[in-house]
Amino acid sequence: HSLSARGMTPPVVVRALGSALLLLGLVLCLPTAAARKTTEPPEWTVPKEDTDSPYGSLWPLPQTVRFDGECYRLNQGRFQILHSSTSTATVGCGILDDAFRRYFGYIFSSSYRTTHRRPVSSGLETFSQLVYEDDYDTHLINKTDIIDFPRFTHRGILIDSSRHYLPVEVILQTLDAMSFNKFNVLHWHIVDDQSFPYQSITFPELSQQGAYHPVTHIYTASDVKEIIEYARLRGVRVIPEFDTPGHTQSWGKGQADLLTQCYNGEEPSRTFGPVNPAVNTTFGFMTKLFKEISRTFPDDYIHLGGDEVDFSCWRSNPTVKQFMESHGFGTDYRKLESFYIQSVLDIVSANRKGYMIWQEVFDNGVKIKPDTVVEVWMESNVKRELAKVTRAGFTTILAAPWYLDYVSYGQDWVKYYQIYKVEPRNFTGTAAQKKLVIGGEACLWGEYVDGTNLTPRLWPRASAVGERLWSQENVTVLGDAYSRLTKHRCRMIRRGIPAEPMFVGHCAYEYKG
Amino acid sequence: HSLSARGMTPPVVVRALGSALLLLGLVLCLPTAAARKTTEPPEWTVPKEDTDSPYGSLWPLPQTVRFDGECYRLNQGRFQILHSSTSTATVGCGILDDAFRRYFGYIFSSSYRTTHRRPVSSGLETFSQLVYEDDYDTHLINKTDIIDFPRFTHRGILIDSSRHYLPVEVILQTLDAMSFNKFNVLHWHIVDDQSFPYQSITFPELSQQGAYHPVTHIYTASDVKEIIEYARLRGVRVIPEFDTPGHTQSWGKGQADLLTQCYNGEEPSRTFGPVNPAVNTTFGFMTKLFKEISRTFPDDYIHLGGDEVDFSCWRSNPTVKQFMESHGFGTDYRKLESFYIQSVLDIVSANRKGYMIWQEVFDNGVKIKPDTVVEVWMESNVKRELAKVTRAGFTTILAAPWYLDYVSYGQDWVKYYQIYKVEPRNFTGTAAQKKLVIGGEACLWGEYVDGTNLTPRLWPRASAVGERLWSQENVTVLGDAYSRLTKHRCRMIRRGIPAEPMFVGHCAYEYKG
Repeated sequence: HSLSARGMTPPVVVRALGSALLLLGLVLCLPTAAARKTTEPPEWTVPKEDTDSPYGSLWPLPQTVRFDGECYRLNQGRFQILHSSTSTATVGCGILDDAFRRYFGYIFSSSYRTTHRRPVSSGLETFSQLVYEDDYDTHLINKTDIIDFPRFTHRGILIDSSRHYLPVEVILQTLDAMSFNKFNVLHWHIVDDQSFPYQSITFPELSQQGAYHPVTHIYTASDVKEIIEYARLRGVRVIPEFDTPGHTQSWGKGQADLLTQCYNGEEPSRTFGPVNPAVNTTFGFMTKLFKEISRTFPDDYIHLGGDEVDFSCWRSNPTVKQFMESHGFGTDYRKLESFYIQSVLDIVSANRKGYMIWQEVFDNGVKIKPDTVVEVWMESNVKRELAKVTRAGFTTILAAPWYLDYVSYGQDWVKYYQIYKVEPRNFTGTAAQKKLVIGGEACLWGEYVDGTNLTPRLWPRASAVGERLWSQENVTVLGDAYSRLTKHRCRMIRRGIPAEPMFVGHCAYEYKG
Repeated sequence: HSLSARGMTPPVVVRALGSALLLLGLVLCLPTAAARKTTEPPEWTVPKEDTDSPYGSLWPLPQTVRFDGECYRLNQGRFQILHSSTSTATVGCGILDDAFRRYFGYIFSSSYRTTHRRPVSSGLETFSQLVYEDDYDTHLINKTDIIDFPRFTHRGILIDSSRHYLPVEVILQTLDAMSFNKFNVLHWHIVDDQSFPYQSITFPELSQQGAYHPVTHIYTASDVKEIIEYARLRGVRVIPEFDTPGHTQSWGKGQADLLTQCYNGEEPSRTFGPVNPAVNTTFGFMTKLFKEISRTFPDDYIHLGGDEVDFSCWRSNPTVKQFMESHGFGTDYRKLESFYIQSVLDIVSANRKGYMIWQEVFDNGVKIKPDTVVEVWMESNVKRELAKVTRAGFTTILAAPWYLDYVSYGQDWVKYYQIYKVEPRNFTGTAAQKKLVIGGEACLWGEYVDGTNLTPRLWPRASAVGERLWSQENVTVLGDAYSRLTKHRCRMIRRGIPAEPMFVGHCAYEYKG
């Protein structure tokens, strides 16, 4: 957006992509300490509590920020955000109408706790971060010129609702926090081995048998709709992941003959392997299921998984072996995997969806369409993998350094995994290759995470990823980041997000549980 | 307690120390699967999700448990817990009256979420853990004979309200969870370098200047009273820690000349060191402060800290040097520390309080009274330290292996730090020495913990410590513990405690935030 204040006062300008907005109800006031020149704080290994960023609490840092001495008081009774005459959007644009109202609340409410559950709609985040209060609760903003846009287009959070069921409330809270940190993709790893909480209209037995509980631990059509709409109003795409052919144990409970029967020698054992690609029923099932999924999730992309396929069960099954022979695959089970994946990709393409896949699908030589997005997750050889994938011309997103389910003592956003400092384009390749890295994802896998601890484990650690994916490449000064992020963390708490502390200190409004 | 059901049905008996109670409203029913024989599940390095303990959800495991085939239905309309004629307690005993009401709620409510904030009063935990529901929500209990008592008398949780202010609500929730896990000591590390949230009546400037905020980030007299009473009703002692002479930076803000002025050569620097033991005003101040503390906190013990005293500032200060000379301490600053600590110990003794101290006070040869409790916290040489302290005849409690602020990925209750398996009496010493180890504490230091993440970080990890301190020494089978603890974790959630998951799986009632 391009926001500007008109009328009695010189303009506060926040220029960004999108529509033009007008601010009313600002009155000129005296300059304050917050209007300072940019200085570069010293760099530390582990940030301390006592530095202060010249950029206040801005997070992620916009592309360019210029303050000057003037500030304005915001008159709550008269303050309005309006569409300017140059805007292509008008009253009635749901996303902006909702965002205006929501951010009015964020700007003026002294505590957002009571209303945090379901505020309406996203945007204006930067503007709201510029507003501060003096000791008499007057809301102030300094004259500021900001030009802003994200460095990467894909800024995702992965949540996993299979290892533990995540209540809808927790997912909505995650979407709120994502909008505060300018993430724009919810990668919803919705089903996996452990449970199948997605309630399919076409195949209701999948959740009936495969969910932890068929009533309380599922996502109904209306739950999914609510989550998608809540996300849409906050500028967040929802990309569901239906991971096959591995990671599908829970699918087998409600869909007979979908999984491969494993054998002990001549005898069927009591275990099942990946999806069985040797029978036609599998593809009939997938066609119907992905047709439904394509309609339920409006985003242009579906994540098809494809990671960690174990060949041992396929190897043991006589039908699969016969299928291998008749298709001339020999004993190369990667060819069988490729056959399966290509069939699924064709099914999804027929529904006019693009797809994302985990890196193994590419690594194993599966033929994938040119517009496939390859997600790199393996920690070893990240740089080589990025080079390989982009050399082959594929778009890629980076997840490997940002597995936030891995926790360690202390400020791990700057330690071991280098959550904050990882540079996604730091690999050997041409400029064209670098451009193919379109973003990344902070992944919170669910083995040790549910509604009790998801939010404090994700925030503000994911905020570090958020700034890496949004701000300029050289925005890497830890002391400055620490100063802004501690304030941003307190703002998140004030807006109802129990983001955990980064180090000793306090917030004016603490989270009370 | 000794609980028994009389009237129309044979008795359910839970024998324990204390008063005798009577249960009404039980009706005999058919035996169920829950009445099983004891078997020893296999031992795993990291427990899996699919075993089941013969002891159901009991946590910590009582000293002896015997089930038989009979079970009883609980009639909610007629169920009552009453004092039996052999009981020394009668109606009007506040702790039991409150506990009866509270546990009635825990036994019959399908969800405790709505009332969890301030339930009334502690006890009957074991009985409530034996009650289960069939598929038709009938509340059942199997005929059970339990003899129970704790193995260690001191079962503590340390919380730290200085590195981050902990809202009163969070502390009360911790007390609830403690009672569910049979902890009986809240070690309240209330002040430290970072902030002084205790509002002293005698020295109001301490929190006025030393708290993060003088109004919103303090514990008033009424807050402290509420916490102590809430704890008392749950059978929990509150031992405050006022750690001196180190760890006192925040004290200096509201009490001039209390801390030692550090020097750079001849010149006073801008920093302050530990409490200044070379001036009389210090002891006048401490006398008044500890008199107040002794009255505010009714427990027989006060924790006086004494850890990590840095001598460099004392060495730099000319007044302190002169004091050293005049007292014939030479350059042995341990003698100065000893002098200071002994003075404080005398002050506290005069208020008829016993005291606890961190191990350094003992290590540094400070003369301490025979009834002093020495807390061992240093990870290196724990066994040697326990042997040394007990050989000198002192009572001791163990904290070293249970610093739960150290987190790592996965099931750390069984990993690295061996939270669950540590045996506090596993050191070289006589039987008399072993008896001097009276318990331990799970410590959640506050550098990275506040109201946003305290509860899921503490529970169920501290539950592992709870069982170690309560149950028999040989209760160490991980699979069995895992099975009981996952169920106990879900029970905690149902009672309003957001205890984090141990591994993949689900609870019938999930925490929704």
